[in-house]
Amino acid sequence: MQKAVQLVCGVALFGALAASVSAQDVKPDRAIKYRQGVLQAMGWNMGPMAAMVKGEKPYDKDEFLKRATWVSELAVMPFEGFTPGSDQGAPTKAKPEIWKDMAKFKQLAEAMQAASVKLVAAAKVGTLDAVKGPFGDLGKACSNCHDDFRNK
Amino acid sequence: MQKAVQLVCGVALFGALAASVSAQDVKPDRAIKYRQGVLQAMGWNMGPMAAMVKGEKPYDKDEFLKRATWVSELAVMPFEGFTPGSDQGAPTKAKPEIWKDMAKFKQLAEAMQAASVKLVAAAKVGTLDAVKGPFGDLGKACSNCHDDFRNK
Repeated sequence: MQKAVQLVCGVALFGALAASVSAQDVKPDRAIKYRQGVLQAMGWNMGPMAAMVKGEKPYDKDEFLKRATWVSELAVMPFEGFTPGSDQGAPTKAKPEIWKDMAKFKQLAEAMQAASVKLVAAAKVGTLDAVKGPFGDLGKACSNCHDDFRNK
Repeated sequence: MQKAVQLVCGVALFGALAASVSAQDVKPDRAIKYRQGVLQAMGWNMGPMAAMVKGEKPYDKDEFLKRATWVSELAVMPFEGFTPGSDQGAPTKAKPEIWKDMAKFKQLAEAMQAASVKLVAAAKVGTLDAVKGPFGDLGKACSNCHDDFRNK
């Protein structure tokens, strides 16, 4: 079945738009690139917030709120990229454990998403003091999942 | 100046989080990967919508609205990745014309963002008829920019 889907997708997916299949039916390499793209974008936005929290960059409430919002929007996106069979097919740091314990993976993902929503609420307060704790909690939620499910 | 920034970033950016610099000061290769990640995610979400509009996949109003919403959220993100000097530094299809005519690039980006917002409004109507036109308009807005500013 997986092979058949891959074959269909192999024909259908070359081009700018994946026109003929649902996002869940794509080839593993495309799913891997998708989730990596989203996670990369999350990291890009975490960086300046981390710098502000650490005092390495002046706190800018507007930028902080923008980045917290973007992270919370991105946070719900990557997980559909962990499709069946996409533990391989392109270079990936995803551990096979993800597919062996999807319930725990999902639980950690949801905890991270909840932490990102709390960070947005804190960022709306508009002070560095308000965001420090929630940013730390979000970082911890990222790490919790990376520790168990991402290779170094 | 660019070299100095690169040097600072070269030291600062190895690690999970870019902790010491703003997102605008990063090394070109990181900016390139960021914008590609976001654009990749946009393409991932455009695919199933295109399939629905073409009748290759059953119209699912909830999925369509989800994907339209995600595209509109992603649509504002990639452009800060077109940092000065990031016309090279990693494999990229971005044409040097972007940095020569940033005003036009920005104009096309904003037209695409506006089209994505209109698509979300149409998707809330919840019928295939309502989204067909706005989806075509968004696809055209993507192409308008790709034609001028993206290599094949």
